[in-house]
Formats: sequence, structure tokens, C-alpha cells
Amino acid sequence: MKRVMLTIAYDGTNYCGWQTQKNGLAVEEVINNTLSEMLGEDICVIGASRTDAGVHAMGNVAVFDTDSRIPADKFSYALNQRLPDDIVVQSSCQVDAGFHPRHCNSTKTYEYKILNRRFPLPTERLYSHFLYYDLNIKKMQDAADYLVGTHDFKSFCSVNTQVKDTIRTIFSINVEKSDETVKIRVSGNGFLYNMVRIISGTLIQAGTGQINPEDVKIMLEAKDRNAAGPTAPARGLTLVGIKYQNNC
Amino acid sequence: MKRVMLTIAYDGTNYCGWQTQKNGLAVEEVINNTLSEMLGEDICVIGASRTDAGVHAMGNVAVFDTDSRIPADKFSYALNQRLPDDIVVQSSCQVDAGFHPRHCNSTKTYEYKILNRRFPLPTERLYSHFLYYDLNIKKMQDAADYLVGTHDFKSFCSVNTQVKDTIRTIFSINVEKSDETVKIRVSGNGFLYNMVRIISGTLIQAGTGQINPEDVKIMLEAKDRNAAGPTAPARGLTLVGIKYQNNC
Repeated sequence: MKRVMLTIAYDGTNYCGWQTQKNGLAVEEVINNTLSEMLGEDICVIGASRTDAGVHAMGNVAVFDTDSRIPADKFSYALNQRLPDDIVVQSSCQVDAGFHPRHCNSTKTYEYKILNRRFPLPTERLYSHFLYYDLNIKKMQDAADYLVGTHDFKSFCSVNTQVKDTIRTIFSINVEKSDETVKIRVSGNGFLYNMVRIISGTLIQAGTGQINPEDVKIMLEAKDRNAAGPTAPARGLTLVGIKYQNNC
Repeated sequence: MKRVMLTIAYDGTNYCGWQTQKNGLAVEEVINNTLSEMLGEDICVIGASRTDAGVHAMGNVAVFDTDSRIPADKFSYALNQRLPDDIVVQSSCQVDAGFHPRHCNSTKTYEYKILNRRFPLPTERLYSHFLYYDLNIKKMQDAADYLVGTHDFKSFCSVNTQVKDTIRTIFSINVEKSDETVKIRVSGNGFLYNMVRIISGTLIQAGTGQINPEDVKIMLEAKDRNAAGPTAPARGLTLVGIKYQNNC
């Protein structure tokens, strides 16, 4: 028996998200079915991040246990032969039997992409949030700086969450503009339900001048979802990657 | 009566190409139907470039004549309200009644995008050609340089073409690598059927070492489609834009 870790990229457009649900096909489900069929075992992967419907990933992480003799590093090739085009395993390796992708300390990095121009671009419509209004990048960065550090992010969490501990640490937020694309890159030790999308929606408000950067401080203190900005659309969000302190 | 010029962006994935055909929905057809319904006139646009199935555009050009009182520059907004998400008019303006998008002198720019890494990226699968093998960018550029200028491009044209004059002028070809993406940018006064895709397929062969850059000279001289490299897949190609000498 060995534990195998997969790093998985996917286009979230056609899925109801990472986690298996009744109302639609989940990425997790496709991976479970493909692995189970391939190995003749009943495989249920443990995923690191439960991305929402429409959210993309360059490197979500999942582990599973198997008796298979396939070398751990060959699983990426074997799986990619069988997976649909919109899910591609980027790497596979063996990890300790006790490694758990949600309980082990990690740094998760997300990127929120905004297309800021006069008209939408068709080829970007599923991978960015289109915005006509000019964004002030400096104000967005100033607003973001208030969020960096260890805070109670209750205001930046959807009320649907079952989580009780809403304290998280954000290591960095960088807002950058290149041509017509604005990217918000957020790294932290963990994120609440919809947290990066609510942060992005709030930073957009700072960028358009609807709020002042320093208002973010008051939002944090309110500990109330209604105090923060709107939840930005899922399609702009990509889980870039997850780094574990004891990586394989 | 006025002649209106549209600059049109589209995601070519779900279309059989620009030109109306029996076997599938064409971009041109969608625009004709949308304009005809909107104006209550029977509109048939004249397009500048007949892009293939799966090829994308940032700025293809089309013109039509109308008696409508809608100001020419408002057509972009009016059309975008009615067009599907994967076709977006980027601008509209009035042009001279004699302006013809294929007969007037122009510079067309295409970009061919190659994703050069270990595994494909799902979100790029419809907008780039995935290639595992390392590409030597200098050799690709050296090969490209033989194509710049006025030549008979018969070797770089699909045999299906009905065109007799196969002489064209390429103003520039630039091959650039940024992270894991290689872009081939080609500008010229006109292109034969599949020409940019055959150029791209040939430059890829130079990049992987299957041919030497100087072989391109012999390919040109052969005036035979079999002498040049393969036709690279449509999804990697985007018509970036068309500049007219007397633009509106």
C-alpha cells in the first residue's frame, strides 16, 4: 500500500466544482471514476481545495492509497491517457502514509484575473472577469495591504460556511496590471468559503473608487459579510498551486 | 445608404470558420442573421479574412450597407447586445462606399501560439498548440527570416486552394518565447489558404531540429506543398488584426 499525491490542473467551466455533488459532474468524481476503473480498486481521493463551479486550477492537490504496482511518478501519464481534455495531471509522486492535503501546513496561491478594456474578448470570457471601468491599481494594492497578515476574515466569507474558526493568515497580495489584464495574486495558509472572490470583489470596488482603501480596515473589524464587497464571478479565479512544508 | 465597417473578435472553437457553409454554423452567418433581424433588412456582410474552423480572431473586419439611422459607431454596442458571448464587435465606423475589405491594400497580422511544457494546460487547450519537445527559438527565427519578403508561397499553401497567383509579401515574422509560451507573429499583405498554419508547422520543425533553418529556402524554391512542413492545428491561430492604408 502506498499513498500517491497528484497535482491536477483543470478548466472548471464544465464542472460543478471540485467536490462531488448531486447537481452536476465534479472534478473529484471524474478523477475517482478514472482511477477506480484504471486500478480495479475503489478509489476516493482526498482533495486539498474545494474549488467552486467555474473556478479553474493549475495545481490543486489530491492523494489516494493504492496497492497498485504502477510507480507513483507514472500515474500522471497513465491518468492523462484516460482523463478528458479539461483535466490534466501535472505531476504525481509518493508521499508519507500520514500526509493529508488539508491538515498539513501549506501555502495556497490563487490568482484572480480581470480583463479591463472597452469590450470583452471572446477567448477570455471563461477565464477572466470583464470590467469596462478603469481600475486604479495603486488604490487596489493599498486596499489589499490591509488584508495581509493574520486576521479574522469573517466579513470575507460567505454566510453559507460551516467553519467556525474564521481566522486565517494571508502572506501576500499583489495587484499587477499588464496591458489590459489586471491580476490579483493572493497567498495564504488557508482560505474561507468564497474568500478570494470576496477579496477580489472588494479590491475592484477600491479600484473603481466606490470605496476608499482604508475602508477595508473597517470591513475586517465588522466581522459581518455585509460589510465587505461583492463576490467576484468564479470564472476569473484560478488556484495556481499549493506548497507543502514537507513536499514530496 | 451608408457602408459600415465592423472589427470583430471571436472564439472560433464552436464555428465551422468565418465563411457560411453547409456543414456547420459560421461566424459570418451569425453576424448576417443578427444584423438582418436587428435592422429589418437583408444584410450580407463582406468579410476580410476567411478564417478556418477553430481559428480565433481579435480583429477580423467586415462591411455592410444599410439605410439604418443608427450612427455607425453605435453598431458595436447594438450588436453586442444580441450576439452570443463568443462573438464580440470591438468597434464600428462608417467607411467610403467603395471600401472593400479584401480588395483594399492592408496589413494582416496573425499570431500562432504554442504551449511548450511537460503537460498540457486545460484552460489553454482551445487557444494554443501543445508541444512537449523543447523548441530552439533562434533556429525558428532563422528559418522564419527566409520567408520574409516577396516570394511565391506555393509550397506554403494547401492544394485545395483555387487561387492562381501564389505570390505574397510577408513584412515580418517574430518568434518569441515568454515562460512556457512560444508565439509566432506574422504580418503580411495577404495570406494563402492555410499559409500561416503551414509556416507555423514548418517553423516548429526547425525548432525541434527536424529540419535546418536554411531548408526553408529550398522549400520555397520547390513550389510544391509536399516540400514544406505540416499544417499546424487551427486552435493555435489567431487573426490579431487588419490595418488598412485608408482606415476609418
